[in-house]
Amino acid sequence: MNTTRPIAILGGTGPEGFGLALRWAQAGETVIIGSRDARRAQDAAEKIKQRVGPSAKVSGSENVAACSAADLLVLTIPFEGHAALLKQLKPAIRPGSIVIDATVPLAASVGGRATRTLGVWQGSAAQQTAELAPKGVSVVGAFQNLGAELLNADGPVDCDVIVCSDDPNAGQVVRSLATKIPGVRAIDGGKLENARILEQITALLIGLNIRHKGHSGIRITGLPQAAYDVM
Amino acid sequence: MNTTRPIAILGGTGPEGFGLALRWAQAGETVIIGSRDARRAQDAAEKIKQRVGPSAKVSGSENVAACSAADLLVLTIPFEGHAALLKQLKPAIRPGSIVIDATVPLAASVGGRATRTLGVWQGSAAQQTAELAPKGVSVVGAFQNLGAELLNADGPVDCDVIVCSDDPNAGQVVRSLATKIPGVRAIDGGKLENARILEQITALLIGLNIRHKGHSGIRITGLPQAAYDVM
Repeated sequence: MNTTRPIAILGGTGPEGFGLALRWAQAGETVIIGSRDARRAQDAAEKIKQRVGPSAKVSGSENVAACSAADLLVLTIPFEGHAALLKQLKPAIRPGSIVIDATVPLAASVGGRATRTLGVWQGSAAQQTAELAPKGVSVVGAFQNLGAELLNADGPVDCDVIVCSDDPNAGQVVRSLATKIPGVRAIDGGKLENARILEQITALLIGLNIRHKGHSGIRITGLPQAAYDVM
Repeated sequence: MNTTRPIAILGGTGPEGFGLALRWAQAGETVIIGSRDARRAQDAAEKIKQRVGPSAKVSGSENVAACSAADLLVLTIPFEGHAALLKQLKPAIRPGSIVIDATVPLAASVGGRATRTLGVWQGSAAQQTAELAPKGVSVVGAFQNLGAELLNADGPVDCDVIVCSDDPNAGQVVRSLATKIPGVRAIDGGKLENARILEQITALLIGLNIRHKGHSGIRITGLPQAAYDVM
């Protein structure tokens, strides 16, 4: 079953956003790649069509236009552009939208290391989004720990996606979306405030990737079957 | 191969310390359980002998005495007693010792939730230990994510142990110790500063346990075989 709602991936020409767009296009979802530069977004959409096939429902637009055309929005932008993009998008975000934040406040954003995070006053990038988003919008933290290399490779990923939101319905929608990526088990991670831990796990995984030369992910063990949403 | 060095588990009558003592005693290691109360420590040692068998090399002493008798020290104390215990132990810690910190600064320490952590000025409980420990001692952050229920159950655990230290040799010793717990894969997690992420993962796992009624752990996927130390 497809969500039938188009998914706009803002900052979708970067490797993480491109990988999510690819996986959802492969699953038959309608995807709009957003970018500062409409041309780059269209090029990325074209690349996905080449890979998935001409029937792939993927297009590219400038970020604000992409945002206006969907109510499932995914933020996959470097943290240094996070607040500015949200301010720019704000008038275009429809009431009732779900904003999925996959952003990680890596210290690399300010010239530091990708193995460290910045302290975000609100607690996490996802909570910064909750503060900057218009009222009536649900914010969900998810996909931070699903590396771009895994998304852009073929075959299932060996990763769980922990989903945090203060809106249980939005969390459920996003868990369903996560399970469309083969191999993913989605887990309700509770309130949005827990996104701060997910964001930091990414820094740990990046460190492990560098140290051990791999593409790491995490699995949560020991929960009852009902805790895992699977395709 | 046993480490041949006795392991003193300070705060070892709590469920986490008891579980580690049990697993290492089962593996044939020499374990000294430390407690504020020598009698409670001896009782815990007795319980382990009943479970493992009379040949188990486990004893119990007051914390300072336990510390004096070993150079592999494990801290498994609630965070509210962490700094005070270290100050008390300091004169008894032998030069060249390895101090393994499994402490998590849960907000429960100050009457808050076990699903949240406190900010520790040094970055993590393990880094607080590095500041308070005498010179010439190596501090290692590990075992934070290995829940007491799993340790105290029978059979292998389904968990990886990420080990962080600024002393690679100490990290290697602790990874070797971790693999003596059946099911554990030990992973070099880099510098001690990364212990802050391990500590926060525990708060996430506790939240998952409450929400989904399980005993969760983590596995790291996607690293080459050489990254995982196994028994």
